[in-house]
Amino acid sequence: MKKSDFLSQLVSLAKRRGFIFPACDIYGGLSSIWDYGPLGANLKKNIKDLWWKSYVESRDDIVGLDAAVIMSPPVFMASGHLEGFNDVLVDCPACQRRFKLEELKKKGEVSLCPECGSEINLEKNMPRSFNLMLKTFLGVVENKQQEAYLRPETAQGIFVNFLNVLNTTHKSLPFGIAQIGKSFRNEVTTKTFIFRMREFEQMEIEYFVRPQHSDKYYHYWVEERFRWYQEKLGIRKENLRLRQHTKEELAHYAKACTDIEYRYPFSTTSEGWKELEGIANRTDYDLRRHSEYSHKDLSCFLPQEDKRIIPYVIEPSGGVDRTVLAVLSDAYAEEEVRGKKRVVLRLHKNVAPYKIAVFPLLKNNPGLVAKAKKIFELLKNKYVCVYDDTASIGRLYRRRDEIGTPFCITVDVESLSDDKVTVRDRDTMKQERIGCSQLIEYFAGKFQV
Amino acid sequence: MKKSDFLSQLVSLAKRRGFIFPACDIYGGLSSIWDYGPLGANLKKNIKDLWWKSYVESRDDIVGLDAAVIMSPPVFMASGHLEGFNDVLVDCPACQRRFKLEELKKKGEVSLCPECGSEINLEKNMPRSFNLMLKTFLGVVENKQQEAYLRPETAQGIFVNFLNVLNTTHKSLPFGIAQIGKSFRNEVTTKTFIFRMREFEQMEIEYFVRPQHSDKYYHYWVEERFRWYQEKLGIRKENLRLRQHTKEELAHYAKACTDIEYRYPFSTTSEGWKELEGIANRTDYDLRRHSEYSHKDLSCFLPQEDKRIIPYVIEPSGGVDRTVLAVLSDAYAEEEVRGKKRVVLRLHKNVAPYKIAVFPLLKNNPGLVAKAKKIFELLKNKYVCVYDDTASIGRLYRRRDEIGTPFCITVDVESLSDDKVTVRDRDTMKQERIGCSQLIEYFAGKFQV
Repeated sequence: MKKSDFLSQLVSLAKRRGFIFPACDIYGGLSSIWDYGPLGANLKKNIKDLWWKSYVESRDDIVGLDAAVIMSPPVFMASGHLEGFNDVLVDCPACQRRFKLEELKKKGEVSLCPECGSEINLEKNMPRSFNLMLKTFLGVVENKQQEAYLRPETAQGIFVNFLNVLNTTHKSLPFGIAQIGKSFRNEVTTKTFIFRMREFEQMEIEYFVRPQHSDKYYHYWVEERFRWYQEKLGIRKENLRLRQHTKEELAHYAKACTDIEYRYPFSTTSEGWKELEGIANRTDYDLRRHSEYSHKDLSCFLPQEDKRIIPYVIEPSGGVDRTVLAVLSDAYAEEEVRGKKRVVLRLHKNVAPYKIAVFPLLKNNPGLVAKAKKIFELLKNKYVCVYDDTASIGRLYRRRDEIGTPFCITVDVESLSDDKVTVRDRDTMKQERIGCSQLIEYFAGKFQV
Repeated sequence: MKKSDFLSQLVSLAKRRGFIFPACDIYGGLSSIWDYGPLGANLKKNIKDLWWKSYVESRDDIVGLDAAVIMSPPVFMASGHLEGFNDVLVDCPACQRRFKLEELKKKGEVSLCPECGSEINLEKNMPRSFNLMLKTFLGVVENKQQEAYLRPETAQGIFVNFLNVLNTTHKSLPFGIAQIGKSFRNEVTTKTFIFRMREFEQMEIEYFVRPQHSDKYYHYWVEERFRWYQEKLGIRKENLRLRQHTKEELAHYAKACTDIEYRYPFSTTSEGWKELEGIANRTDYDLRRHSEYSHKDLSCFLPQEDKRIIPYVIEPSGGVDRTVLAVLSDAYAEEEVRGKKRVVLRLHKNVAPYKIAVFPLLKNNPGLVAKAKKIFELLKNKYVCVYDDTASIGRLYRRRDEIGTPFCITVDVESLSDDKVTVRDRDTMKQERIGCSQLIEYFAGKFQV
């Protein structure tokens, strides 16, 4: 299948089955903003919860944070975003459309408009800078409203809370602060589904270390995060790669940066390889700048050395929505089963929106319905289950395959006498008869961590 | 203790221990916006996860949703927010401060400024309307930026997705759509800690029903939510009450509304009773308006009756931050233990940020440290645990009491020979010696659902 076809199949399934809808859809949508439907909300929450459990709940060296989205201008003076977080854009003199300079530049000093084909001469059509932050205003007193910004990255919420966290948690280096939350960027529309959005979600750790240990922890985090995507989310290794930034690419304050790239279904020159997460050694830049601008001492005391230092920071910064897209792309498969096309999402059991679906074979048979609902009640406290009787069994299986439910349980007439049900495995399509009293144990084995 | 003292004690503990910090604190804060520190982030996530599990994961009649914060203007034309979501404000002619008309009106037509005491005559100092929504701008093309709003309630994200959810989930009436997320309102500062914020989080269900069943489900949801706060979060019944809205209070489209009120530690005329959650019968107002404005058919087909109707909706709308404040207020206690003051947060085990803390009695004894860390490793996959050796055992207990950790485990020298540890209960302060091999079973009993 061609990549463009693959992506449109995926977008179509995501909308048809309730993973992802265009935002404000009934009013014509909102460019580069998307809503997560019932299945997408579950899938995304599963990814975030796995991350939070891996790094905040199961580790003693990292604490969580949940800072506000709205931040005041001095934060972004210190961080450099007010001055430098710009897209350089060029207008097409013919069609008035606006493009990123970096995209045109690949084609030389004089290039043709990607939309209408007219000549764009960069000497005549001067590029201009536009800040990517979204602005809003607080306070109700006219002419005295206070400018504020929607954060363009969750990281700044961590840096401005560094001192409060240090003072309240008794942590010493190395330690990390982790946060999941929304960020906002006024991106030029790129039509890449949920890959690049104006409102998106990040999962970021700022891991503070002694400067001389920063290389060690940088490599540790590159490997840890690369492993995590495979082990916890089941993303296939052949669709993941590490790409170290060249010196020219590095931000001026960064010592090193590696992207974890996923092979997305985009038809681009890079064969679809795009950033899923970046792991950067940001040195002491952020804390030093915030220290200078706030006049607060953001250093740590090292008891052994009897001195204060501003720590270096290693930042594994992942995109939640990009992870959702990678997980969906990786799981999507079309295959032929007995002459018919089967669409199946081979989602890892950790992230599947529903783990088990329960059906009565006949929805008009009260005995079957009652037994199916009893099984749903039995399992629902341990697993996210769904009861469904809104179609024939063949359609119900097809529906469940398309949304990646690992197991289906069917209650049939025989179940009423032998107290057994049919359990169907999504991937192998094999069916087993399992005694109702064995179901808890059976699934405990299947869903074992 | 006086209520104002109680509140300031709570705010102080919240900052000192890392529950809640002023946003952008190192830059002087940001009015009516707060950040959740390590403990607050855990506590808030626990509350949200309990709600999500209760209503989305364990029920077959409700599905989840995760819609964007930024929405387009037509949404708020339809909802009535652009026209009617206003605070009516009055300026003090002397000090220029601005107040809500409704607050001044309680004091008559001529009143005195609450800040400077000057006379405010409402005939001379005309009240004016200010819309409470936060505005932003999308798009990078100058003079062509698109106005957009940060949603003032999560509910609108549900209504505009009603059709997409209906078409993708095969649900029939009654069914609900549930969402947790941020909302934004440009409130006049009220200095009530996290009770009223400009950036806050809501947990809302829109439960769609046949019009003739709306009274029944309205009462069902009032009782269900009232019970939930007590049963799942452990909030004391004497601090909760139901208050039905009078006809004068009701929004013009609402058929009925009941607030679940909590007795907050505010010194107000209402003795601190304030809204924690509102449960409203909003009739078919929202779907009808969105149907009119979007020209989309937002009705449901009823197969038995063979007709289409626009359903009524029952809305249980809770504030996440208000719940955090209620939980903290409810749990805070000061008591005298052997002549000394003990501050203890009697948080329900479901919401406590950490469930178990593990200490070595002597941090310089490698055997004790190793054994304590082993116990931490043993328990951390089942419970959110913390290892701490940064103070003497007395201080560690005091610290844990103040942040509401239900159990502390201390490893002492004897533990090395008898393989037993001391488990201390936060509430009773009783200590038990438990064999290390019994710990899993011991806590399974203690944390049983």
